[in-house]
This record gives sequence, C-alpha cells and structure tokens, in this order.
Amino acid sequence: MKPLEWINGKVRFLDQTKLPLEEVVLSTDDVAELAEAIRRLAIRGAPLIGIAAAYGVALASLQLKSGERDSARAFLQSTIDLLASTRPTAVNLFWALKRQRRIIDGWETNSITDLQHRLIDEALLIHQEDYAMCEHIAVFGVDLLPQNCSVLTHCNSGILATGGRGTALGIITKAWEIGKLRHVFIDETRPLFQGARLTAWEMNQANVPATLIVDNTAAVLMKQGKIDAVLVGADRIAMNGDAANKVGTYNTAIIAKHHGIPLYVAAPVSTMDFKMKTGQDIPIEERDGKEVSEVFGRRITPQGMTVYAPAFDVTPNELISAIVTNRGVLFPPFSDSIRVLLSQI
Amino acid sequence: MKPLEWINGKVRFLDQTKLPLEEVVLSTDDVAELAEAIRRLAIRGAPLIGIAAAYGVALASLQLKSGERDSARAFLQSTIDLLASTRPTAVNLFWALKRQRRIIDGWETNSITDLQHRLIDEALLIHQEDYAMCEHIAVFGVDLLPQNCSVLTHCNSGILATGGRGTALGIITKAWEIGKLRHVFIDETRPLFQGARLTAWEMNQANVPATLIVDNTAAVLMKQGKIDAVLVGADRIAMNGDAANKVGTYNTAIIAKHHGIPLYVAAPVSTMDFKMKTGQDIPIEERDGKEVSEVFGRRITPQGMTVYAPAFDVTPNELISAIVTNRGVLFPPFSDSIRVLLSQI
Repeated sequence: MKPLEWINGKVRFLDQTKLPLEEVVLSTDDVAELAEAIRRLAIRGAPLIGIAAAYGVALASLQLKSGERDSARAFLQSTIDLLASTRPTAVNLFWALKRQRRIIDGWETNSITDLQHRLIDEALLIHQEDYAMCEHIAVFGVDLLPQNCSVLTHCNSGILATGGRGTALGIITKAWEIGKLRHVFIDETRPLFQGARLTAWEMNQANVPATLIVDNTAAVLMKQGKIDAVLVGADRIAMNGDAANKVGTYNTAIIAKHHGIPLYVAAPVSTMDFKMKTGQDIPIEERDGKEVSEVFGRRITPQGMTVYAPAFDVTPNELISAIVTNRGVLFPPFSDSIRVLLSQI
Repeated sequence: MKPLEWINGKVRFLDQTKLPLEEVVLSTDDVAELAEAIRRLAIRGAPLIGIAAAYGVALASLQLKSGERDSARAFLQSTIDLLASTRPTAVNLFWALKRQRRIIDGWETNSITDLQHRLIDEALLIHQEDYAMCEHIAVFGVDLLPQNCSVLTHCNSGILATGGRGTALGIITKAWEIGKLRHVFIDETRPLFQGARLTAWEMNQANVPATLIVDNTAAVLMKQGKIDAVLVGADRIAMNGDAANKVGTYNTAIIAKHHGIPLYVAAPVSTMDFKMKTGQDIPIEERDGKEVSEVFGRRITPQGMTVYAPAFDVTPNELISAIVTNRGVLFPPFSDSIRVLLSQI
C-alpha cells in the first residue's frame, strides 16, 4: 500500500492517524484539506511531507481558470505559503515547495494547462526521485551493519514516511531481505506512538521479526548487548551534521554513545539545509500539549497540567557515527564530508 | 488523603489505577483481594507495598479462629507466600513480611487475640516508621539541592508511594516548602504513566509549579540547562549502590551524567538488600506486554506484536551522585558508605 498517490487530479492518501487499527484511505482535490492532513499528521514523515506539498501546489493549479500570469502566480504563492505553514521542522517541505516555485517562475506561456502539466510532472518527479533515493540509501546503509545484527529504531522512517521503502527503516528492511538482520526493536515513540503504530505495522506487513518497547527500555536492551546499531531518520540536517529528528532521538543517541553502539542517521540530501550552520538554528516545532496530556482522547493527567511538547530534538554531530544519504555515506568530521558532498552536486 | 490506612480491621486504600480522573477508595478485610490490589498496582510504590503487605498478614490473622500454633503459623505462612508473590523487585515487601514472620515466630502464647494484636501493632509501627523515614529523607535530601532549583523526577515516589511524604518526591515538596524549589519537571513514565497520573496529581494537590513531559523530552530540557538535579526513588539497592527503580531511571541517569547533572536516589535503609552484592543480582519484574501494547484498553500496535516490558531497570552506582536515606546521605564509593551505614544499625 502506498501512503500517498496522485490519481486523476486528486491526492489519495492513507490517514496515518488511524493506523494500525484501521486502514482509512482519503482522497482530496482541495489543497486546504491536504494542508490540514499534513498538520494533523495524517500525512507525515519528512520526505513524504515534501512530496505531499509538491502535489498540493499541483492541486491548487487545477483550480486556476485563466492563464493570466500575475494572478495565477499570486494564487499559487498563497498556496505555497499555506503548505509551508503546516510543519516548521522538516526541511523537505520547503525544498519541495521551492522546486514548485521554480516551475511557476519559469512559466512564460499564457497557457494554464501548460503550467498545470508542469507542476504535476514536477510533483511526480519529486515522488519518483524520493523512491530512488530510498533505494540508494538502503543499499549504502546496509553495508554499515554487521551480519546477523539486531537494531533499534525510533519513530517511523519507512514506507509511510517517504515515497519509497523509507530511509532508516528502508535500510532495516533491506538488511532483512539480504539475510543480514536478526531482529528489530521498535521504540514506541511517545507522544504519538509512531513506532508502536506505524513502524510496528510496517514490520508486521514485511514479516520482519520485531519487538516493541517503551522508549525507556532502549537503554536496558543496550546494556544487555542486544542492540548492534541504532538507525533513525532526520527532518533537517545542519551543515555540521547536527540532525533534527523526532523527540527522543537525542536521548537515544546519548544512551547509544554510552554503550558504545553506533547511531546512523539516514536521510536524502534534500534533508540538508545549506542555511543552517549548526543544529541550534533549526526551528523546533512545539505541538499542542494535548498530544501528551491526552492519549486517544483520554486525559492521563490532572486538568490544566502544564505540558512541554517539542515534536523534535537535535542530535549533535558528535553523537552520530555516520549519515547515510542517497549519494553515499558521510563520516565525521561532518562539516568536511557534507561540504565535499554538496560540492559534487 | 492517605493512600492506605488500617481502619477497624480493614485496609482502606485509594485505587491508584483510577487516578487522576477518579479518586476511588476501596476497603477490604480479604488478604487475597489486597494481594490482587498490589499485583494490579492499585497499591504501589516500594515502601507502600511493604506497609500493605504487613497489614495483609494482620488481616489474615483476623481470620484465625483457634490459638493452635502450628496450624495458625502454617496459615499465616501461606498468606506471606501469597503476598510475597505479588511483586518481585521491591525489597521492602520482603522486608516487611520478614518483620511479621518474626512476630509470628516469637508468638509463644496460645492466645490468638494476642497474636492478632501483635501483628496489627507491628504493621502500624512499620507504617509510622515509614512516615518518619520520609521526613528524615526529606530533611537530608533538601540540603543537596541548590537555591531556586529546577528538578526532574521519574515515576512516583511521593505520598502515594509511601507511608509519609515520599522519598524523592518528599525531598521535592520539602524544597518547595522552604523556598528552595523553582520548578519540577515530571517524566510521564511510560508505560503506566505514574508520573503523568500520580506525581502530577500530587504536585497539583500541593500547588508545586510543575510541567509534564514525555520521557523522551528530559534530555532536551537538560541540554537547555533547565534541570539542576534529578531525583528518583528506588525499589532495591545493592550493597555496591546499584539501584533498581522504575524502567527509564537508568536511561535518565545516563543522560543526566552526559549533561553533568547530579542524580540522587532517595530511599529508606529498608530498601537496601544485604544479599545483593551488585545490581546484577536484583530480580527484575516483567509485566504483561499489554501494559505497553494497550493504553487504557485501546490497542496501539498491530495485533500479536511482541513486546518486552520490564517494569524496572538497574542504575549502576557510577551514575548515582548520592543516595539519600533516612539515616543520612551516602556518597561514592557506595560499597564503603553503605557498609559503614549498615555497621551503625
């Protein structure tokens, strides 16, 4: 099942908030509805958000009636602004919108159909590229893992988070396919249980031997020698290798380091943000405290309790053993390896 | 509100599984029902479990009709076995049962009323002693904290876990009362949310400024410089200072160490287990995986998902800055300081 598809002028997507209990597929030609789906995490995962946003601009273009360029551009810019406002941390969102903006800027005919086709094609291309990026990441990443390994992953960075097999989770399923993986331990990933709900669902579908733990239990497993490597995705990577990812990644990186276990961050090159010198510059989304204080609508804490709910954290480069990109594996010092990589693109 | 009381031959207790949404008070004269309440965590917290078990033996003695010593002893031993089987990690349980066993062994009259009174008195004494131990721990512990401090705590080690103001949480409320505390951050404490449900409820009742976080967010706060100290309780402490406590404590200890933040373990001397040389010997209770895979009855992961659910972990002594007991504060090396302490008792 694909988490997101462009079908006849509509975006068809799995409502990930309902997984794993229900597999609800929604379809929309309304960009506001799509933006809301991103905001409420029905569509999530940094690469998939980028793909969805690209389709969103294409959807908006189908609303245009006239080929009058200035008004069309203004309308599409408002759509881009709307989509850009949904989630602040994942840079793929802004990267995909920039690509669509470039298509709009380069549109010089007065044919609205021409613009529509170009925006749809660009979105489809972003989607296909992401598929290929995942394949490359998996092939590069699997080489880092020892034979018969047991790994830990946090949050969800698989099929449901990308246009392909995933980033960190794509490496894990690739390792399983080639007989290198023994077991995967899944952090449930509070507050929204993306590990328990989504990664567990994916491992179940792919028949990968997996065990679910509360995030608190990862250090126990490491101490027991049951984890050979930690694999995680990223929502934004700064030029020094600092990586923003789901809250709890920084915690996991510290405990992995303490036990001498490597932590690998897997992400396409589009996750790197040229403008961010270090992770300190990365904007961290704070979510509604209710996502912590209520679990599936049931309050777990006294009424009015203050909650601090950042959705992401930043793992400093010194806790990262390697960054697996679609263009190869980067090793520390990341300031150098990232610079060399980007100079080749 | 007291979490547990002996009232006219019955044990009256707050069903902690219902907090904070409901304050349900139960009452029983049936030791099997009391044992089940401990097992299902309606009564929890290492010191409180010990108190409850002591009352349990007293309850059972009230069922005795004849003063025939051998059969009375056999019956009470079966009660002790039942209570001892409820939770394996907290040593206070076995310590309290041993005290009652000593009363039974020392009973030389044929008067069943005499035995009943002695067992009730011993249980009340254990309860009162625990109250006093909490007060001592609070006074000793508060000296370790800097002025205007902000602290983090994990799980619940307060009024609801003890016969008094608590261990780690007792230090925190004492610090608040004397104007030393600025803020407390509460780990929600997956899987059973003792932080979100119980510690938050206690802080609310005591009007202590508090913020709830998912366990994953503690490292973020430490990095931001918002945590001056971490305070936790313990279920069992080995002779080298290794301490078993709610799962996630070991994780928290590692991240605290990483950020140069002291971690203090607070527990009465009765939490120390003379038979355990190191934490490796401490039995760790594994709970039903459903406590992870279901949240308030709602499944959060695919059907049949394998779960690993240890209820406790062991924090090695090198991650502990000090152990606050009712007999004073112990500093590393704990093998020495614990030996000296125990030689004075």
